[in-house]
Amino acid sequence: MATIQPVKGTRDFYPEDLAFRRWLYEHIRTVSESHGYQEFDGPFIERLELYAAKSSEELVKEQSFVFADRGGDMVALRPELTLSLARMVAQRSKSLPQPIRWWSFGPFWRYERPQKGRSREFFQWNIDLVGVESPQADAEIASIGAAFFRAVGLGPRIIRILVNDRRLAERQLEQAGIPARLWPGVFKLIDRRDKLSAAAWSAYALETGLDAGQLSSLQHILEDTEAWRTSPEMVAFFAAAEALGSSEYLAYDPTVIRGLDYYTGTVFEARDTAGEHRAILGGGRYDNLVADVGGERLPGTGFAMGDVVLGLVLASAAALPTLRTSPSVVLVTNFDTTTQQASLILCQTLRAGGLQAEWYPEPGRIPRQLKYADRLGIPVAAILGPDEVQAGKLTLKHLPSGRQITCTQAEAVLRIQELIGH
Amino acid sequence: MATIQPVKGTRDFYPEDLAFRRWLYEHIRTVSESHGYQEFDGPFIERLELYAAKSSEELVKEQSFVFADRGGDMVALRPELTLSLARMVAQRSKSLPQPIRWWSFGPFWRYERPQKGRSREFFQWNIDLVGVESPQADAEIASIGAAFFRAVGLGPRIIRILVNDRRLAERQLEQAGIPARLWPGVFKLIDRRDKLSAAAWSAYALETGLDAGQLSSLQHILEDTEAWRTSPEMVAFFAAAEALGSSEYLAYDPTVIRGLDYYTGTVFEARDTAGEHRAILGGGRYDNLVADVGGERLPGTGFAMGDVVLGLVLASAAALPTLRTSPSVVLVTNFDTTTQQASLILCQTLRAGGLQAEWYPEPGRIPRQLKYADRLGIPVAAILGPDEVQAGKLTLKHLPSGRQITCTQAEAVLRIQELIGH
Repeated sequence: MATIQPVKGTRDFYPEDLAFRRWLYEHIRTVSESHGYQEFDGPFIERLELYAAKSSEELVKEQSFVFADRGGDMVALRPELTLSLARMVAQRSKSLPQPIRWWSFGPFWRYERPQKGRSREFFQWNIDLVGVESPQADAEIASIGAAFFRAVGLGPRIIRILVNDRRLAERQLEQAGIPARLWPGVFKLIDRRDKLSAAAWSAYALETGLDAGQLSSLQHILEDTEAWRTSPEMVAFFAAAEALGSSEYLAYDPTVIRGLDYYTGTVFEARDTAGEHRAILGGGRYDNLVADVGGERLPGTGFAMGDVVLGLVLASAAALPTLRTSPSVVLVTNFDTTTQQASLILCQTLRAGGLQAEWYPEPGRIPRQLKYADRLGIPVAAILGPDEVQAGKLTLKHLPSGRQITCTQAEAVLRIQELIGH
Repeated sequence: MATIQPVKGTRDFYPEDLAFRRWLYEHIRTVSESHGYQEFDGPFIERLELYAAKSSEELVKEQSFVFADRGGDMVALRPELTLSLARMVAQRSKSLPQPIRWWSFGPFWRYERPQKGRSREFFQWNIDLVGVESPQADAEIASIGAAFFRAVGLGPRIIRILVNDRRLAERQLEQAGIPARLWPGVFKLIDRRDKLSAAAWSAYALETGLDAGQLSSLQHILEDTEAWRTSPEMVAFFAAAEALGSSEYLAYDPTVIRGLDYYTGTVFEARDTAGEHRAILGGGRYDNLVADVGGERLPGTGFAMGDVVLGLVLASAAALPTLRTSPSVVLVTNFDTTTQQASLILCQTLRAGGLQAEWYPEPGRIPRQLKYADRLGIPVAAILGPDEVQAGKLTLKHLPSGRQITCTQAEAVLRIQELIGH
């Protein structure tokens, strides 16, 4: 019989994979909490209508896992969290203390062709600041991204957070004589710039409704790296980022616009400077979203970062951590059936003393049991044969050094702590 | 416009709800790791065929969220983890060091009528020991359940773990002259005993194919609380549990059989002694499961515990924890636009000093800002007005005591640590 296969685009988290996910979570948690953000989560499934017309047409129509539940409602496996956040805030906007600073880390789904940097099931960090309209709020959010990169060893030579402001972009388009009805299409066009060839992109621009003169103006806009100086929001943003210690990660980039329909102001994405990978994180300001899902108007800003691209970037930068998977500090050996009861009692004593202790569950040759401990990186083996049981003693072997000592069972916790250097 | 509703049977995790989920996770992690178990996870969606015929017909046909993905495959939102674990072990049975001790905590879905103790989306702790056939392995698993209950303040007066062995039950049925072809039906019958009235249950027994004499024998079996003494596995199980310090939680119960088809030996479930709630956790031995999904034969034992019933039991026992949701230890106030830059720099200095610091993001009246800190339980406010900025000083207010001190910005981290008693 062949082994049943997992679903394409999903991942199995063996202990070594989970250890990386946990490492990521711990860094995300530390950085989020150092800025005062509270952990929250939405449901993993939501009604399709929550996303329809507020997120992005491509995301909803082509990339969501959608199904009819047994009651007939159309339901989606969440492709993103911001809409759930907006719904949750809208439900309690009267009672939640503001500002709302929330972060989350959990699974999301998008039906995309599995490829480098993309899986259909992935984990994402979301962090949002709701109730504040100032550029300082955007700067705080972008600076949290920078603080995270610094914490995981990805310096500003490796990562850059590229920033723009849709309000500034709209003013630029207006000045170029591009009518407001074309702006949503032009934003999609800008977002596609690095996904298409120059010729295909120009053709797409004309399809979008731009004439040759407007296209030329747009190209000038996308090359003008000093335009941020004309935007009071961008100027205040970069000043606040300076105070928050993140400016070396940040750069204005007029080609960044982001694909989601709900952004209304600052937008940004993190890229590797080598240009090898997709965007590592993306975010921006969404001042109408809470109202869009039925709440009162509440401004918000935030970003999302997936685990897959980040893992690739860490690998490229040789910054992947080396992680142990076994939590055990001591393996209690299993000599034979006459010593089993004493071994189990010893395990329990060690755990009561605060040590992570596991028992080799089958009696047998001690060298084989020590090999198992060694393979799992368990530093100490507690060997308990019939003589030791009778004498109330045990042998402790420190596997990395080979050092071996004998002690009473009452001393065991202390001696093990000494051996592992605690 | 009405707020868009969440999907029925799902839950929103506002920070106070997430704080409970995290508290639960932390206890689960500590107990699992104290016994040497490694954290792992499966995908959240699996092919329906993984569950079909190996789990329980009711679970697969009536209770799973099932859909065809865009490629046409039938996919289920995972209703349980043990089949994913079996698949993952089968895929790597040659390379994984044995014994395999794995635990996990994550979301699961069952399409059930939302009611007390049930939600359609819930969190579950899974813990499994694979590769060991001994009763000591079952005792270790059950003892981990007991250790968890002790850790969260649910003593053996409140919770009992009721244990049986399907091998023992089969011998008893055989002795009662009930033919082997009826056993699967009889196990379902036993599992339904507390869900039906006595009359309905007897009627169901006759439908299952038992005659009146066999039914009477079955009733004797279900009342014989000493039968475990005839089972070498159960005797060894209780002896090992004694060594592991969990016996006061454990009791033999011939009416416990569990609903999943794949159990082959020891089965157990935890119940509140008051009988108010559903089973809190359930598990047992599944020696054929890895082979059933296409691997080599590998024995296993484990249990799963959901978060919903546990929450209700904790509430009944007045053992729910009181948890803070904000991680911040200091709020940096926002006096006016002239002090903003200095306030942001102070935030950054405090974070660099290891403190969780948040900034009040809008300039305005200080009492209002202090009220916000108080409402979130943030213990210290750092007040920075124009005079303080000019003098390089700041005022620290310890909100619980009202104590107020002035210090230099260089001293701030140390003074705050003193105020909060670190």
